[in-house]
Amino acid sequence: MNTKINNSNNQVIHSIGIIGSGNVAWHLAQAIHALPQLQIAWIYSRNQETLSELGTALNCEIVTSLPQQKVDLILICVNDDNIQAIVNQLPKDASIAYTSGVVTLNELSFQQSNFGVFYPLQTFTRKKDIALKDIPFLIEATNEAFTIQLEQLAKQLSSNVQRISSEQRKQLHVAAVFTNNFVNHLLYLAQQHLKQNKLDEHLLQPLLKETIAKVTELGPFQAQSGPARRNDLKTIETHKQQLEGIAKTIYSTISESIIKTYHS
Amino acid sequence: MNTKINNSNNQVIHSIGIIGSGNVAWHLAQAIHALPQLQIAWIYSRNQETLSELGTALNCEIVTSLPQQKVDLILICVNDDNIQAIVNQLPKDASIAYTSGVVTLNELSFQQSNFGVFYPLQTFTRKKDIALKDIPFLIEATNEAFTIQLEQLAKQLSSNVQRISSEQRKQLHVAAVFTNNFVNHLLYLAQQHLKQNKLDEHLLQPLLKETIAKVTELGPFQAQSGPARRNDLKTIETHKQQLEGIAKTIYSTISESIIKTYHS
Repeated sequence: MNTKINNSNNQVIHSIGIIGSGNVAWHLAQAIHALPQLQIAWIYSRNQETLSELGTALNCEIVTSLPQQKVDLILICVNDDNIQAIVNQLPKDASIAYTSGVVTLNELSFQQSNFGVFYPLQTFTRKKDIALKDIPFLIEATNEAFTIQLEQLAKQLSSNVQRISSEQRKQLHVAAVFTNNFVNHLLYLAQQHLKQNKLDEHLLQPLLKETIAKVTELGPFQAQSGPARRNDLKTIETHKQQLEGIAKTIYSTISESIIKTYHS
Repeated sequence: MNTKINNSNNQVIHSIGIIGSGNVAWHLAQAIHALPQLQIAWIYSRNQETLSELGTALNCEIVTSLPQQKVDLILICVNDDNIQAIVNQLPKDASIAYTSGVVTLNELSFQQSNFGVFYPLQTFTRKKDIALKDIPFLIEATNEAFTIQLEQLAKQLSSNVQRISSEQRKQLHVAAVFTNNFVNHLLYLAQQHLKQNKLDEHLLQPLLKETIAKVTELGPFQAQSGPARRNDLKTIETHKQQLEGIAKTIYSTISESIIKTYHS
């Protein structure tokens, strides 16, 4: 057993095939391409437009059919719903990892012995530069040797590489929805409230900046302030009267949650 | 009328008395103290401990009774609920401004002819340094001349000085609750979810940082992503099954609001 692992450890990923040309592929491909010890052998995507753009940016071979030339790793960077269909088209002896934060290993059907997850926890925007080095890469694979290979690859891109299970990754993704999607929507509701009251939309930017600085420094439990934190029911009631529809419901529900956190 | 305004314009605030020694007083007093053309004549507070600390930090006179020596402006930096009681103790010929984001002019009873609002829109934390120069100062007063005086004072502290009405200030405060209090609480819920699943609490920090960078660059409408943005009801249902209690309710309500924003 040890011998097998040690042998496998000696296998290092050099050549990579990338499947997908969306936001995640865009950033991972460029980061991999920038490392001299790694080589992108080909990039495949169904989207000809974004594929061509990415191929031009990297000056590497783009392909429009699968399977392709054998590589040390095929990295699947497609939407969650399309992963299975891609896996079905790949050779049984391929080493495969996918980048989803949601899809668990056991909900996929595959025959490859080297199969895993290579999940960069970040919101990626095409053509918006972002440093990968601080981004957590969450790794999981069907065997120890391949897990180590994926970790070694991730460590070349980031200083924050961790192993987590499929179940933990699913839970992490929910927390990421709160952190990214929901925070963003609250900021949208705040902006709409300013617009409705003919207030300058940029008024809240310094507050947002300091909110994040404070929560990062003190942690969210200590950083909490406001009427619900003080259990100031009078102000909460006044605020609710200033709101309507679903924004009012959100105000009530989050206030209730804050009160419960600090006053029960 | 013009003559009167012009005469009043010539009055510039030099000497200031500060009432309060909490977070707002702490930051405003230090910023005012740092300007050579302004002078803090005295600081009053019921809280002897924080008052003494602030007096020591500024090396200025602290007092424990009201009224005190006449100044160009008395700045009331106390909790919303205590403003009226303070106003009742001040001379009729005093020029007064208070720093609340919530209390409207017409809900206070006062006899002074120079009475107004000097509201710095920020979350202040005692002893946590913050640059005032980008912070919006929202100004309102009972007459034009005093409004101009307060504006001129604010412009010495910040490059973002705006006039808004009491009603707008109340609405702005609701939007500030979404931006600060509620964003902070979502981050608390995300952190709790990580803890409950034995995940590293710091995993989401790079995502938070990029979330804020993205929303600042693109605006919240464009920056929105995630299952609710895509109307991906399957993932939303899976996520809800991973949550319980009020966190689940918050997940449902905000998801519904996002779907309504983009798909109705």
